[in-house]
Amino acid sequence: MTEELRTVGERLGEIGRRFDDRNWVLGTSGNFSAVLSRKPLRLVITASAVHKGTLTPAQFLEVDEAGAVCGRRAGKPSAETRLHLDIVKARSAGAVLHTHSVWGTILSDLHADSEGLAIEGFEMLKGLDGVATHEHREWVPIVANDQDMARLAGRVRAVLERDTRVHGILLRGHGLYTWGRTIADAERHVEILEFLLEAVGRRSQPWR
Amino acid sequence: MTEELRTVGERLGEIGRRFDDRNWVLGTSGNFSAVLSRKPLRLVITASAVHKGTLTPAQFLEVDEAGAVCGRRAGKPSAETRLHLDIVKARSAGAVLHTHSVWGTILSDLHADSEGLAIEGFEMLKGLDGVATHEHREWVPIVANDQDMARLAGRVRAVLERDTRVHGILLRGHGLYTWGRTIADAERHVEILEFLLEAVGRRSQPWR
Amino acid sequence: MTEELRTVGERLGEIGRRFDDRNWVLGTSGNFSAVLSRKPLRLVITASAVHKGTLTPAQFLEVDEAGAVCGRRAGKPSAETRLHLDIVKARSAGAVLHTHSVWGTILSDLHADSEGLAIEGFEMLKGLDGVATHEHREWVPIVANDQDMARLAGRVRAVLERDTRVHGILLRGHGLYTWGRTIADAERHVEILEFLLEAVGRRSQPWR
Amino acid sequence: MTEELRTVGERLGEIGRRFDDRNWVLGTSGNFSAVLSRKPLRLVITASAVHKGTLTPAQFLEVDEAGAVCGRRAGKPSAETRLHLDIVKARSAGAVLHTHSVWGTILSDLHADSEGLAIEGFEMLKGLDGVATHEHREWVPIVANDQDMARLAGRVRAVLERDTRVHGILLRGHGLYTWGRTIADAERHVEILEFLLEAVGRRSQPWR
Repeated sequence: MTEELRTVGERLGEIGRRFDDRNWVLGTSGNFSAVLSRKPLRLVITASAVHKGTLTPAQFLEVDEAGAVCGRRAGKPSAETRLHLDIVKARSAGAVLHTHSVWGTILSDLHADSEGLAIEGFEMLKGLDGVATHEHREWVPIVANDQDMARLAGRVRAVLERDTRVHGILLRGHGLYTWGRTIADAERHVEILEFLLEAVGRRSQPWR
Repeated sequence: MTEELRTVGERLGEIGRRFDDRNWVLGTSGNFSAVLSRKPLRLVITASAVHKGTLTPAQFLEVDEAGAVCGRRAGKPSAETRLHLDIVKARSAGAVLHTHSVWGTILSDLHADSEGLAIEGFEMLKGLDGVATHEHREWVPIVANDQDMARLAGRVRAVLERDTRVHGILLRGHGLYTWGRTIADAERHVEILEFLLEAVGRRSQPWR
Repeated sequence: MTEELRTVGERLGEIGRRFDDRNWVLGTSGNFSAVLSRKPLRLVITASAVHKGTLTPAQFLEVDEAGAVCGRRAGKPSAETRLHLDIVKARSAGAVLHTHSVWGTILSDLHADSEGLAIEGFEMLKGLDGVATHEHREWVPIVANDQDMARLAGRVRAVLERDTRVHGILLRGHGLYTWGRTIADAERHVEILEFLLEAVGRRSQPWR
Repeated sequence: MTEELRTVGERLGEIGRRFDDRNWVLGTSGNFSAVLSRKPLRLVITASAVHKGTLTPAQFLEVDEAGAVCGRRAGKPSAETRLHLDIVKARSAGAVLHTHSVWGTILSDLHADSEGLAIEGFEMLKGLDGVATHEHREWVPIVANDQDMARLAGRVRAVLERDTRVHGILLRGHGLYTWGRTIADAERHVEILEFLLEAVGRRSQPWR
């Protein structure tokens, strides 16, 4: 294992423990990746079927731009590697984080017909990259879930091309994909979007 | 204490601390078991009336296929040992975990008349052994609770025989029983089913 | 400080950290006591205005049956010492624990007119001392809150005399008092009653 | 770094970890300050854009009464430094803590038209400085959020002058500002107000 892969794995492992404490990666749900190099594109990504709350550097793999494993082959890469690579390319992202929270799951279902939900008026929005005011209206697209990874990746790419200003995408009944220029940016985006989804979800229930 | 019992006890103790952090085993609720050997059948199981958040290997017992304690006798086995043995036999399970969460408790009551609840459309379902798509429809049977352990075990056996594809069973007003080929599989099943029960429960409340 | 007071203080301190993790003693709310001796009656009790999540043995005091401080006088005893002593006498309790949870607070208000709420049908009830079946109906009396400690203590004594089988009492808009023969019994009663209050509270909201 | 700044930074860092565990400072939300000296006024305040769950003393800055950085200049002070200074002056506060909870965010929006919400009848209110009874009626003013810091500070100053007995202020869709004579008082006020906001929020949803 290269020193760089180990360092990135340790950092993503800390994030996993943090998210696990908040029940955002229960079971073996979620997957995380970070860019090791741009040219050629090399991505560090969590192996398939490992728990994100107890990640060790040995549970990460290095893949090339086609998703093929480079070097050591301890386990296979997450089935959703394609989505990570597409997001990295479309957004010049340095890291992609995917979480499964209860609120994200519920809202992705309740708003599926509108193919997204709008979040506005929250100061928390300012934590999203490039957002300067709570008056910002953040559109979170919702994409139909699919076990055919090529088809699902196609839908996600279409959304990334169409909605160029979004910071995250919900897969229906599945969870949140978000990203950032750095690992820290992506981590902050998860925390902000999960907070906002919970706030929007709770506010959408009836009040006396 | 055999080295094997100690190792299994330590592993189940870690799971207990994890579940306790999520309030799934408050009071002295819940009980955990794992198979030590198949022939003859030997099960490691939590002693009765101990807190699952602070388990030590000394709080586990070894029982035979009739539920009689083998060797050391520090405490008595959980009153629900019968259920663990029946599940192990009917499902060739390597571990059985029983939790008491608020959402599981509420839903087991709300859906008692239908003798179960169906969960479908969630990506999380794919974490259940043998499930390959979110389009899967998971039936979670609900069994009437009973203090007569022979009668309760009879009901659970009937469900296990009838609903051969289920991954867990709710006892009404009581909690969740789930299992897996390995301890890790059973732990993952608890996390997934508890996540899904919370998601289904929250989604079942009214929305504006 | 006697060795005994230190030992009891450390044990109650652990309980405080556990309850604090669950947000049952936010601010400086709650107070804990345990019996050091019966004849003469000596009670270890948390000092007033300390945080229950960071208790040290030095934050406990020893009081006699009249509530007067014995020996070392580092701080004053909790204003609610009277209630602790009355419960210890009326119930031969070895420990009394008082918590302030959100669910307990809300329910104590919603059911104030009925002067209590009934909890039944939950397996968790069996964790209460002397309860052998989930068919048990646990009555949790609700007492009007009062800043006049003599008057409040009088109301609590009246309830303890009338409802001889209860395991806990809610003070309206204030929180839960529970107790047990040992510190472990009292701790278990808090966990069980707080679980049940949350379950009853969530189930009392509308369902689709 | 002076020894005093380091000590204060460590204490505020502990508070940050505590609040982060409760999801009150997700993303890089929130900011904390404490008075180092009164004459001349020197404030220790969190640097802008740092996570409050992992604060180190190096992530704090010292500012004067105009908000200009004194000495070492590692990062820039929080954009909301003006609000901290105004609160410190208007209330002779020794510390100011700002948190972003889901319940505070939702309620600040639901009650925005009344420019505040009243909280009464809770024993927890007694943890607020100077409050002696649960019959106290605490008014929590809600101020319209604004990215123009001078304008926002003006509104907050107007509220501080008008509502001289309040212990905290909600910025709409943004979060809670509270303060105290000491850091411990301010920390306690956060815990109490966040508890009360959750209790009021949950109680405001319909009941069967």
